[in-house]
Amino acid sequence: MSLTTPLRGVVPPVCTPLDSRGEVDTASLARLVEHLVDGGVHGLFALGSTSEVAYLTDEQRATALRTVVEATAGRVPVLAGVIDTTTARVIHHAEAAAGLGADALVATAPFYTRTHPEEIAGHFRKLRATVDLPLFAYDIPVAVHSKLSAALVRELAEDGTLAGLKDSSGDEGGLRRLLVELGGRGGRGVGPAPGFSVLTGSELTVDAALLAGADGVVPGIGNVDPAGYVRLYEATLTGDWTLAAQEQERLVELFGMVDVGPEADMGRSSSALGSFKAALQLLGVIECGATAFPQIPLSAGAVAEVGRHLRAAGLSPVR
Amino acid sequence: MSLTTPLRGVVPPVCTPLDSRGEVDTASLARLVEHLVDGGVHGLFALGSTSEVAYLTDEQRATALRTVVEATAGRVPVLAGVIDTTTARVIHHAEAAAGLGADALVATAPFYTRTHPEEIAGHFRKLRATVDLPLFAYDIPVAVHSKLSAALVRELAEDGTLAGLKDSSGDEGGLRRLLVELGGRGGRGVGPAPGFSVLTGSELTVDAALLAGADGVVPGIGNVDPAGYVRLYEATLTGDWTLAAQEQERLVELFGMVDVGPEADMGRSSSALGSFKAALQLLGVIECGATAFPQIPLSAGAVAEVGRHLRAAGLSPVR
Amino acid sequence: MSLTTPLRGVVPPVCTPLDSRGEVDTASLARLVEHLVDGGVHGLFALGSTSEVAYLTDEQRATALRTVVEATAGRVPVLAGVIDTTTARVIHHAEAAAGLGADALVATAPFYTRTHPEEIAGHFRKLRATVDLPLFAYDIPVAVHSKLSAALVRELAEDGTLAGLKDSSGDEGGLRRLLVELGGRGGRGVGPAPGFSVLTGSELTVDAALLAGADGVVPGIGNVDPAGYVRLYEATLTGDWTLAAQEQERLVELFGMVDVGPEADMGRSSSALGSFKAALQLLGVIECGATAFPQIPLSAGAVAEVGRHLRAAGLSPVR
Amino acid sequence: MSLTTPLRGVVPPVCTPLDSRGEVDTASLARLVEHLVDGGVHGLFALGSTSEVAYLTDEQRATALRTVVEATAGRVPVLAGVIDTTTARVIHHAEAAAGLGADALVATAPFYTRTHPEEIAGHFRKLRATVDLPLFAYDIPVAVHSKLSAALVRELAEDGTLAGLKDSSGDEGGLRRLLVELGGRGGRGVGPAPGFSVLTGSELTVDAALLAGADGVVPGIGNVDPAGYVRLYEATLTGDWTLAAQEQERLVELFGMVDVGPEADMGRSSSALGSFKAALQLLGVIECGATAFPQIPLSAGAVAEVGRHLRAAGLSPVR
Repeated sequence: MSLTTPLRGVVPPVCTPLDSRGEVDTASLARLVEHLVDGGVHGLFALGSTSEVAYLTDEQRATALRTVVEATAGRVPVLAGVIDTTTARVIHHAEAAAGLGADALVATAPFYTRTHPEEIAGHFRKLRATVDLPLFAYDIPVAVHSKLSAALVRELAEDGTLAGLKDSSGDEGGLRRLLVELGGRGGRGVGPAPGFSVLTGSELTVDAALLAGADGVVPGIGNVDPAGYVRLYEATLTGDWTLAAQEQERLVELFGMVDVGPEADMGRSSSALGSFKAALQLLGVIECGATAFPQIPLSAGAVAEVGRHLRAAGLSPVR
Repeated sequence: MSLTTPLRGVVPPVCTPLDSRGEVDTASLARLVEHLVDGGVHGLFALGSTSEVAYLTDEQRATALRTVVEATAGRVPVLAGVIDTTTARVIHHAEAAAGLGADALVATAPFYTRTHPEEIAGHFRKLRATVDLPLFAYDIPVAVHSKLSAALVRELAEDGTLAGLKDSSGDEGGLRRLLVELGGRGGRGVGPAPGFSVLTGSELTVDAALLAGADGVVPGIGNVDPAGYVRLYEATLTGDWTLAAQEQERLVELFGMVDVGPEADMGRSSSALGSFKAALQLLGVIECGATAFPQIPLSAGAVAEVGRHLRAAGLSPVR
Repeated sequence: MSLTTPLRGVVPPVCTPLDSRGEVDTASLARLVEHLVDGGVHGLFALGSTSEVAYLTDEQRATALRTVVEATAGRVPVLAGVIDTTTARVIHHAEAAAGLGADALVATAPFYTRTHPEEIAGHFRKLRATVDLPLFAYDIPVAVHSKLSAALVRELAEDGTLAGLKDSSGDEGGLRRLLVELGGRGGRGVGPAPGFSVLTGSELTVDAALLAGADGVVPGIGNVDPAGYVRLYEATLTGDWTLAAQEQERLVELFGMVDVGPEADMGRSSSALGSFKAALQLLGVIECGATAFPQIPLSAGAVAEVGRHLRAAGLSPVR
Repeated sequence: MSLTTPLRGVVPPVCTPLDSRGEVDTASLARLVEHLVDGGVHGLFALGSTSEVAYLTDEQRATALRTVVEATAGRVPVLAGVIDTTTARVIHHAEAAAGLGADALVATAPFYTRTHPEEIAGHFRKLRATVDLPLFAYDIPVAVHSKLSAALVRELAEDGTLAGLKDSSGDEGGLRRLLVELGGRGGRGVGPAPGFSVLTGSELTVDAALLAGADGVVPGIGNVDPAGYVRLYEATLTGDWTLAAQEQERLVELFGMVDVGPEADMGRSSSALGSFKAALQLLGVIECGATAFPQIPLSAGAVAEVGRHLRAAGLSPVR
C-alpha cells in the first residue's frame, strides 16, 4: 500500500516474536500483525527499537520485515526501520527494505560516532536520494545520543527530504514549538510542509500530542492494546478530549508493566520489551515471550505481574 | 493570604527587575506584581529560577520577597523559593521567607553535592518540620542535576510533607504517570494525597498538562502575558480544549523570544531571562531590562526582535 | 602567610569536623590542622567541597575558616573556598574570607543557572577586581556541571586574573594539553603565565600529574594520610618516579574506603566524606565522624571496614 | 602471528584510507601498515573507532581487515574491532574477522539499546564462547554511552573471558584503581589475572598510564607518528620517565591538529580523523585524505594547519 501523506493515526512499532532458539517466529509475528490490524491501526512500523532491531542480524531483520509485509497484505502501510551507525550501512538496510516491499523508511541520526547537524542533514539527504521511498526521521536521543533540532527537521521537511518525523525525544516542549512552526493545529496540511507527518513516540501523552496537532502516534505498548490507542485517536478526531484523556489514563496504568523487571537485575530494555512480549504471550497472540540475547528474561513473578496489569486494564489473558 | 489546597491556576515565577546598578528596583517590581494580579493570576512565585534567585544576595532576596508580599497585599498567595545547596542553608532562607510573610515555600533537592533519594527525602522532611509553611518540591534537573522520582514525590505527598510539586523536569511522561498514580483527572482531590497540587513549569504544553489533570502552571513567560495563561487555564475549566490549544499556540510563538540572544555569545539564562525583562520594559511594566551580572545583556537588535514577538502575539509595546 | 607563586606541593582540602549537634567542632578542627601541618603539607584548602562547604551556613563557614587560619598560624598558606551560585553571592563569601585572613580564594564557575564561557570569564574577572587576594579557579564539573575550557583558563592565567587552577575535572588529557600550552615540564615558571599554579584534585593519579608538570595536588584523602602524599611529592622532586608510583599505589588502596557506604543506601558524598571522617576519628584526630545533614551516616560495619583500610595502608587506628 | 600474553607496547588503531569514491584504498592501507611496522609498533588494531569502522559496510570492513592482515604478514599481531550494537550482530563480525586471520577481537558493550552490567557480562562471555580468539573489551563511553565498571572488567579478566582491556574511557582514576586491584606495577603478570593486558586509549597521558602499570597504548595519532610512541614506550622500559614525558609533550603538541576543523562546521570525528588522514597524506603515506560520508571534509586552510603541526613536531611533509 503506498503511503498517503501525511501519514496519520496509530502506527505501532511491531514487536518481533522469537522462538526458544532466538530465531524470528514468523507464525507468531503474522498473528501479531493480525492482532494489530484487527485493532484498527493505521500503519505498522517494523524494525523499530521496540522490534529489538538492534539485536537482529541482517537475515533476521529481513525475515521480520518480509513477514510483516506479507501478513499486512497492503491493508495498511508498512514503515521499515533502517537502523545502523552511519549512512553507507543505513543505505544497505534501506535497499533491503525497499526490496522487501516497505512503504517508507525510518532512519536515525548517525550514532556511535560524534556527529554534527551538517553531517546529519547530509545523511538524510543522501538516504533520500539513494533509495526512493518516503523517509521519516527518527529522533531518539536515548539511543543515538544526539537530538534533532527543530530547525534541522523543519529544513528537511520543507525541502522534501523528509516525509515525517517519529519523535521519541521526550522533549514535548520542543515538539510543540516545531508543530507551531509547521503551521500549528489549524495549519498542518497547508503550512510550509503540507505533507509532513509528525508522529509521537511518547505513548503516555498521546492525547496531549494530538491536542498539539501531531498526526499520530507510534506506541510500543500499542502492540498489547492497539484498540485502546485507536479509541484514543478516534476520540480526538471528534474533539472528545475528555474521553481521549480517560483512555490515555487507562493506557498509562497498563504501561506500568514496563517496570516489572527490577533495575538491579536487568536493563530497561529487557524489562520493557520483556513485559510487552509477556503480555502478548499471555493474550495468546505470540507463542513465546523471549527477548533477544543478552537481554535478561523476566522472572515468573514478573510475568504474573504483567498479567495483573492486563486484567486491571480490562484485557483478558488466555494463559 | 493563606493557601487553600490544592493550589490551582496560573502562578507565574515573578521576575526581579534590577536597576542600572544591579539592585532590586522595588518600584518596578511592585508594578510587575500589579501587572500579574491584574492579569488574573492565582498566585505568585517569588524567588524562583526566573527571578534570578541564584544571582541575588540574601539581602536582595529579602528585598524582592518583601516587595512582592507587600504589593500583593493578600490578593493571591505568595510562594517563596528557598534555593540553596543543602538543608541548613535552605532552612536559613525558609526562616527569612516565613518572617517576610510568604504563604508557602518552594525548595529543590540538594545540589552541588552528589545526593541520593534517601537524603532528598530527609531534606524535605527536615524543612517541613522546621518551618511551618506548606512546602512545594521544585523538580528542576537542568539546575540541580538530579530528578525527583515519582515514587519519592508520591511518598512525600501522601505523608503530608509536601503540599505540591512544581515540575520543571520536562519529563511529561513521568508527570503523567505521577498524576495517574495520584488519582488521575477524576481522582485528584479524592486520591491518596487529596490536597496535593501539581503545577507544571513546562510553559509550552500547559494545555496538555491540564488535560492530564495537573492543577496549574508556573510559566516564566507568564510575566509578559499573564492574561494569556489565565485565558488558557479558564478555557480548560470549561472543557474548551480547542480554545486552550489555540491560546497555547499563541504563547508558544511569543515564547520564541527566548532565542533572541545568540548561543555563541551568551548562556541560555541570559537570553531567556533577558528577553522576558526586555519585553516587560517594552510593555512599560518595568524601568530597565537588565539581568544580573555576569549574564550578558541583549543587544539592541535582540531587544527589537523581542518587540516583534510582542506585536505578533497581539501585545503592544509602549516604548 | 602570603602566598609565594606558583603555589606548589600538597594542599589538602581540610575536612570540617562536626559535633553531635552538627556544629563545627573547633577543637577537632584545630587538631586536624596540626595533623596536616605535622604531615608536611605545603598549604591548606579550607571550605572546599571536601569540607562539606555546600552543607555549612555562612556562620559555620566563618567558624571553620577562622579556626583553620588561627590553628595554621602562618606556617603554610590557607586557601579559602568561596562556593556559591553566582558572582554577587561569591563576592560576599570572598569578602568574609579576606576578613578572616585567607591567603587566597578558590572559586568555581557559576552553577544552578545555565552559564557560558563569556559569563564565566566575567565572573572570575569581577571577583579578582573586587577582592584583592590571589584567585584560583576550581574546575569541578561533577558539582557545577560545566567544564572550564583550556582556552578560558589560559586566557585568565595570562592576563593575571587567576593565580592558579584546582583541576577536579578528571579530564587528564585536557589537563595535559593545558600544561603543555603553559610551557610544559621545562617551561613552567618561564612560560606564558610564569606564576600560575596547576593543582590536581585527582588524588589517584598524582604521580602522573606531577610527571606531566603539575605543581601540586589537593587530595581529599590527604586529610587521612598527609605524610603519604608528601612522600609522593618529594619523591617526584628527586625524580624517583618508581617510588612515587609505589606510594601512589598504597594511597589508591587506602582510597578504597570511599566505597564503604552502599550506593543503594546513600549518596557518594555521604560515603566518601563519611569514610574520611571515620578514618580521622579512628586515628584519634577528630572527636566525631558525623557528616552534615542530610548525608546518611555510615553503619558500624562500614566504619570497621574503614579501619581495615587504615591498617592495610600501614596507619594505626587508636580507637 | 598468535598473540603472546599479555599484549604489550604500542598498538595503533589503523586508519582506513579511502579513495575519492569512498572505497577502501588498499594500496594506501598497505603502505600505512608498512609505515606503522617500520615505526616499531608492537601490534595493530584494525577496525577500531579510528578506522571509521562505524562508517564502513561489512564488505569494506572485510577489505580493510584483509589488507591489514596481509600487509602485516605476521610481523605483529592484528587485533580486529567487531563493532556493532549487540551480541548476534557482533558475532557475525567476529566470525568474519576470524576467517580473515585476525589474532584477537576487540568488542564494546552493547549500544543503541539500554543495557546493564549483567547483560554486558553475558555479551562478552557469549562472544568468547562462540569465536575462539582472545577477546579485548573496548571501554569507550563516548561512543556506546555506558562505562565498564572495574568490578565487571576484573571479573571477566579473572575468569578468562577477557584477554585485555582497551580503555578509552578517559577515567584515569578508575583505571588506576583497576590496575592496583590487578596487582599494581609489581604484580602485573603474577596478580589475579596474569595474562591480562591493559591498554590505554588516552593518547595524551601514555607516560602516566605506563607509570601506573598499564601494558601499552592504542594511540590514534600513532598513525601519524608511530616512532614517537615507540620511543615513549621504550623510555619507560628503561625507567627514563623524564624522556618519556618529553616525548609525550611533543606528541601532545602534535595532537593539537585534531582541532583544525571548526566546531561550528563539523563534528569532532570529522575534524580529528580528518586531521590524521590529512597528515598521512602530507607525509606521503596515503593517497587521499578523505574521510567517510557524511563526515565533513577539512578545508585547505585546515590541511595547511595540519602541515604546520607536523613540521613543529619534527615531521616532514613531502607534499
